[in-house]
Amino acid sequence: MDTINKTNATEGAKETSRIETFSDGVFAIAITLLILDLIQILHQQNEVGLIKLLLTHYQALIAFIIGFLTILICWINHHLVFVYLNKTDSYLMWVNGFVLLVVTFTPFPTAILAEYFDKETHVTLAFFGFNYFMMSLAAYSLCAYSYNKYLIKEDSRELFYYFKLKYRYSIIYTFLILFIGLISIPLAIILYCILFIAFAFPRQFAMRIMLMKSGRKTRLEKLKRKKHN
Amino acid sequence: MDTINKTNATEGAKETSRIETFSDGVFAIAITLLILDLIQILHQQNEVGLIKLLLTHYQALIAFIIGFLTILICWINHHLVFVYLNKTDSYLMWVNGFVLLVVTFTPFPTAILAEYFDKETHVTLAFFGFNYFMMSLAAYSLCAYSYNKYLIKEDSRELFYYFKLKYRYSIIYTFLILFIGLISIPLAIILYCILFIAFAFPRQFAMRIMLMKSGRKTRLEKLKRKKHN
Amino acid sequence: MDTINKTNATEGAKETSRIETFSDGVFAIAITLLILDLIQILHQQNEVGLIKLLLTHYQALIAFIIGFLTILICWINHHLVFVYLNKTDSYLMWVNGFVLLVVTFTPFPTAILAEYFDKETHVTLAFFGFNYFMMSLAAYSLCAYSYNKYLIKEDSRELFYYFKLKYRYSIIYTFLILFIGLISIPLAIILYCILFIAFAFPRQFAMRIMLMKSGRKTRLEKLKRKKHN
Amino acid sequence: MDTINKTNATEGAKETSRIETFSDGVFAIAITLLILDLIQILHQQNEVGLIKLLLTHYQALIAFIIGFLTILICWINHHLVFVYLNKTDSYLMWVNGFVLLVVTFTPFPTAILAEYFDKETHVTLAFFGFNYFMMSLAAYSLCAYSYNKYLIKEDSRELFYYFKLKYRYSIIYTFLILFIGLISIPLAIILYCILFIAFAFPRQFAMRIMLMKSGRKTRLEKLKRKKHN
Repeated sequence: MDTINKTNATEGAKETSRIETFSDGVFAIAITLLILDLIQILHQQNEVGLIKLLLTHYQALIAFIIGFLTILICWINHHLVFVYLNKTDSYLMWVNGFVLLVVTFTPFPTAILAEYFDKETHVTLAFFGFNYFMMSLAAYSLCAYSYNKYLIKEDSRELFYYFKLKYRYSIIYTFLILFIGLISIPLAIILYCILFIAFAFPRQFAMRIMLMKSGRKTRLEKLKRKKHN
Repeated sequence: MDTINKTNATEGAKETSRIETFSDGVFAIAITLLILDLIQILHQQNEVGLIKLLLTHYQALIAFIIGFLTILICWINHHLVFVYLNKTDSYLMWVNGFVLLVVTFTPFPTAILAEYFDKETHVTLAFFGFNYFMMSLAAYSLCAYSYNKYLIKEDSRELFYYFKLKYRYSIIYTFLILFIGLISIPLAIILYCILFIAFAFPRQFAMRIMLMKSGRKTRLEKLKRKKHN
Repeated sequence: MDTINKTNATEGAKETSRIETFSDGVFAIAITLLILDLIQILHQQNEVGLIKLLLTHYQALIAFIIGFLTILICWINHHLVFVYLNKTDSYLMWVNGFVLLVVTFTPFPTAILAEYFDKETHVTLAFFGFNYFMMSLAAYSLCAYSYNKYLIKEDSRELFYYFKLKYRYSIIYTFLILFIGLISIPLAIILYCILFIAFAFPRQFAMRIMLMKSGRKTRLEKLKRKKHN
Repeated sequence: MDTINKTNATEGAKETSRIETFSDGVFAIAITLLILDLIQILHQQNEVGLIKLLLTHYQALIAFIIGFLTILICWINHHLVFVYLNKTDSYLMWVNGFVLLVVTFTPFPTAILAEYFDKETHVTLAFFGFNYFMMSLAAYSLCAYSYNKYLIKEDSRELFYYFKLKYRYSIIYTFLILFIGLISIPLAIILYCILFIAFAFPRQFAMRIMLMKSGRKTRLEKLKRKKHN
């Protein structure tokens, strides 16, 4: 089944670009739909003045920006993975479909954030955090599948391994913040900010892990050599 | 009129890719709009708590996932057909337009599913089932038209014949489930799950039919030879 | 200013494809947004049964299909024009922007059609007819501008002249139906159906005009020759 | 970090086109979503006649057209910048992300314009003006970053400098109108119209600045020469 399933390199490049076009469409729509929830506010009450209305709903604006950044970071990461992909198979469509499901879903926890953050902070945060956890899981699945099935460019295999590692770490990280959010909300928010910064520049982040790991290895080798001598 | 209408191979490849870009846009938007119905819930009642509200509307979440999977499977199938197409004509635009009409319509039965499944299960299921029936009809039309008008790559004609066959089967299958849904809802749901799985990997499914058919032929030939001897 | 403004042939092909990508996006979204108005119905009243609710709003379904066909026909026509374009300039962006404005606006008269057709038939029809008139105007502007500024492929100039002519006819035609709609609604609807069919296959329609015109010319020449003899 | 980050020219062209595809998607959706606010009106009150309803909400139509023109002009400008870009880096994604954030946000001040212009003219205008100010800031950031990091085609560097200058002027200009809007609304509107016209043809506008500047330089040189003589 494998030979039927997997495309060759030239066809593969065309194929991957098509999956990316569809995915880009989904990302672009999800990121733009967020504004609808903000516009919704204007139709709710008309008695108070505009400035008062907007001040009452300042959370909706913050939620909009958080939702926007979340999907933008997802797109940057998704896009980077597809730079290295040069083959596809039938299952990749489904792994990518999982990523798209989470992306499409993101406006929902964002809307919850906008409307319920002050009333039910813990539940809201847990809901939004669960979305990040699912996103990490989806991103890891995409990376791990591409890596294990040799769908990526041969010369980028080593770097891509650290991509995979990066998303594996993020699964554990986002899982932990879920529980930290139950104890301390400010701490959870700080940890999410760190997550944002780390994944805002995914290539550099992966390279840093690579350098750290190889650095540790070199140090270990040095230690071994010392012992040997 | 035919020579005017049909494009040559190189131009055709460009043309088909343009139709696909437009179609991909429609698919991407239809799949992302599904979340709007889920967000709608948050604006309905604010007295009960968030968790209670979401639990009451758990059907909307299931409907969202079903709608998402439906459109994703449609995209995968649509995309696969366009891998083999290398010519277009004026009528193909309209056959493809029929597919897009059904895709664009899909969020409507999904919204019905979300809101009426518990109250009017049979009607809801019939409505959603009718959508699948129309989709099979549209997919078959696209395949049959491309096959009959020689719009596909010459070397893929045999495989594509089984694509056509696959969608012809699905017309009958989805038509039957429409009536089964009136008798037994669980059975209908199981049959839809089988449909989902079969069309989740359309290439493999077509190849299986091909192997089965050719296997039967070989057995028939063997039988004939036996009789002959 | 002209030399700065106009791009050369190879760059032009890239440029036109970019304008088309953006336009395709707008068309794809406008066509998919139509379903939102249909979904809206489900949230209005919940007391009556689903079937009764849908039967009451059967006009919304018809409006959805009409809106869908309108935008699809627009896309087919827009797409065909861009097949022949191989240069762009700054003003083309704005002429194309006019087309997109009308396309983006189309869901609005469609929504009016869905909600007001039974109550205020004449006004609704006039509104929808005005949209068609504007669309003809926009399509003619695009064609005429491309033709007059030599932005189209050299070898297609003759055919393209008939494209231009076709849209010029449609301006007059849609303008006339606007008034016919005030006298007889069924006649207006029939005339719109003819419009739909004619523009559903724009290339064939243009060629028919070309053949008719050249046929008349040949006949005229024959007549002249007869007289001469 | 720089060598890792920046792509080479051929890869860069592919990369920039991908960012543009995603951006085009966002622009296309933002521009099409504007109509939803207009459709919303139809669902508000049904007692009065259609024409009366539309006349009451004529501002919503004007707001729709203003919003449409705003995003279209943004797209034309964004698109023009990407014509000259042939390299990307990780930070460009974020600078471009800032542009997209403002574009995505635009339907919100447009909706405010539609609903509050008659009630709270000054606040509405300030809000919409602030959006233009942010847009100028975003456009300038994109230009300045691309220029300073040498991400643009070598032979267009001089022209691009005037692009950068153009957006720097627009920051000051939009900032000033913000305050003028507090004093005189008609004057502010006239100044916005001039802004629209200037940025509707961004290439020509930049070239005019270039000619003016070089003209002044030449005149200065002439003056110097005169003095010298």
